[in-house]
Amino acid sequence: MMCSESPFLRGSRGWMLERFSERLKKAIRRTGGCLCVGLDIDIAKMPEALSRDIPGVRAFCRGIIDSTKDMAAAYKPNLAFFEAMGSEGLAALEEIRRMIPPECLVIADAKRGDIGNTSKAYAEAFFTRMKVDALTVAPYMGKDSVEPFLQYEGTCVFVLGLTSNPGSADFQMLEMKDGGRLFERVIATAAKWGEGAKGEVGLVVGATKADMLTDVRKVAPDNVLLIPGVGAQGGDLDAVLKSGKSRDGYGMVVNASRSILYASKGVDWKEAARHEAERTVAQMKPFFG
Amino acid sequence: MMCSESPFLRGSRGWMLERFSERLKKAIRRTGGCLCVGLDIDIAKMPEALSRDIPGVRAFCRGIIDSTKDMAAAYKPNLAFFEAMGSEGLAALEEIRRMIPPECLVIADAKRGDIGNTSKAYAEAFFTRMKVDALTVAPYMGKDSVEPFLQYEGTCVFVLGLTSNPGSADFQMLEMKDGGRLFERVIATAAKWGEGAKGEVGLVVGATKADMLTDVRKVAPDNVLLIPGVGAQGGDLDAVLKSGKSRDGYGMVVNASRSILYASKGVDWKEAARHEAERTVAQMKPFFG
Repeated sequence: MMCSESPFLRGSRGWMLERFSERLKKAIRRTGGCLCVGLDIDIAKMPEALSRDIPGVRAFCRGIIDSTKDMAAAYKPNLAFFEAMGSEGLAALEEIRRMIPPECLVIADAKRGDIGNTSKAYAEAFFTRMKVDALTVAPYMGKDSVEPFLQYEGTCVFVLGLTSNPGSADFQMLEMKDGGRLFERVIATAAKWGEGAKGEVGLVVGATKADMLTDVRKVAPDNVLLIPGVGAQGGDLDAVLKSGKSRDGYGMVVNASRSILYASKGVDWKEAARHEAERTVAQMKPFFG
Repeated sequence: MMCSESPFLRGSRGWMLERFSERLKKAIRRTGGCLCVGLDIDIAKMPEALSRDIPGVRAFCRGIIDSTKDMAAAYKPNLAFFEAMGSEGLAALEEIRRMIPPECLVIADAKRGDIGNTSKAYAEAFFTRMKVDALTVAPYMGKDSVEPFLQYEGTCVFVLGLTSNPGSADFQMLEMKDGGRLFERVIATAAKWGEGAKGEVGLVVGATKADMLTDVRKVAPDNVLLIPGVGAQGGDLDAVLKSGKSRDGYGMVVNASRSILYASKGVDWKEAARHEAERTVAQMKPFFG
């Protein structure tokens, strides 16, 4: 399919953009792994040679992208770190998004979600304006808060299922009256929201709960999983790779942020990031043989 | 207390900013009502005389603020509508925030929430950079996703409790194994997160569920409630005012957006907005006698 990998044609008539899960499959075949490089930019942790300002952030992201793009199936900019720099930070992110080559998927980690007309505006912000391929959203407000995000061909909306932080115990683990825990209900329910929609529904499932991935795959066998928590947060990559794939043998991206971004503060930061990405992808390769 | 109503001193040493609930009480006494004017800017619905671009949005917000500021206890800009205009939209919001006089509280409707270091960056974005007085957050990720927002004197973090959209039935209404529904558990749990913190915890409870406010007040008697859903969404204002107040007789803000903003598309748009705000506050006054 012509131009199927350019996200910039989304919404133009006469073209059918390939589904997100298909583009992910190609990216996994291209790189050998399902690595997502999280762009969680912490100015204090950036390489010493870079200025602690927006030009520094831009240079940092350019360096990280240039040195990892043939290993990264996806990039995941974290909106919070750009918003913390105000409107200029968001302008920098718009530029950084354009640095990412079309064969890499872009997942905006934004955890948005609101009533219908508000979610519609968020969807526009991310899919039409920033032209990302996917977005994370929160489930608490239910189906009609997520539906406006599902109106875009070739995109994926990752609904929070089970998160990797301690607070996931507060509500996600609560037992429901008619069986199961809240996160299982959220996953089983949200997994079906994509049926018949233009966009796909994916699910966020933290790697620190790798033993639960098998249960997740029972109720959501085909949805793409976005798996954070490997690396700095301590999740077990092998365990995740063993049980996280969808029925087609792909269907997952594993995020690593700090371990790659801040592999070195010295002059060798690009090589160190590249080396860490290579190491991670090498560990993934046997699972996508 | 000197300068207690200026949000711009937050974080400077040697000052203790008055608590959000105290400042709200003063704002209710000043205006006679607990009106929050929601800045949900829909370019298509703006008055005909204004340009359909960012200068137009700025002029629109300035007009709305100027003509309602003596009736508004608070303003609630909705981030989605500004993000939909990209980084320039966010820059406009930064400017609009500065148009709001210090005696009116500013609640950023953002529904944020993420793991700790990410929430910390969002908190910085809103409380340090944009200098809002309060923020809405989503509860699904639990306590440690909300705690970073509670580190700012004089602020309030409104946790989603029960929302006014149809999708609230999907998860919020689910029955829990050990009794009650999820939203009741969320409200009872989150209401306590503010204990001993610098910031306060408030709760979002949709006006379309006014009959449930009495139940909410049983488990959260003192938290400030942010109540959307009156006006265009059809909530019953009198019912809300009757059962929504905290034990001190204040402790609630009722949001109206579309009914005020788009009261007229003609040349009389400022007067129409003012008239609608006056009408709403007049209905509120008897409850704060």
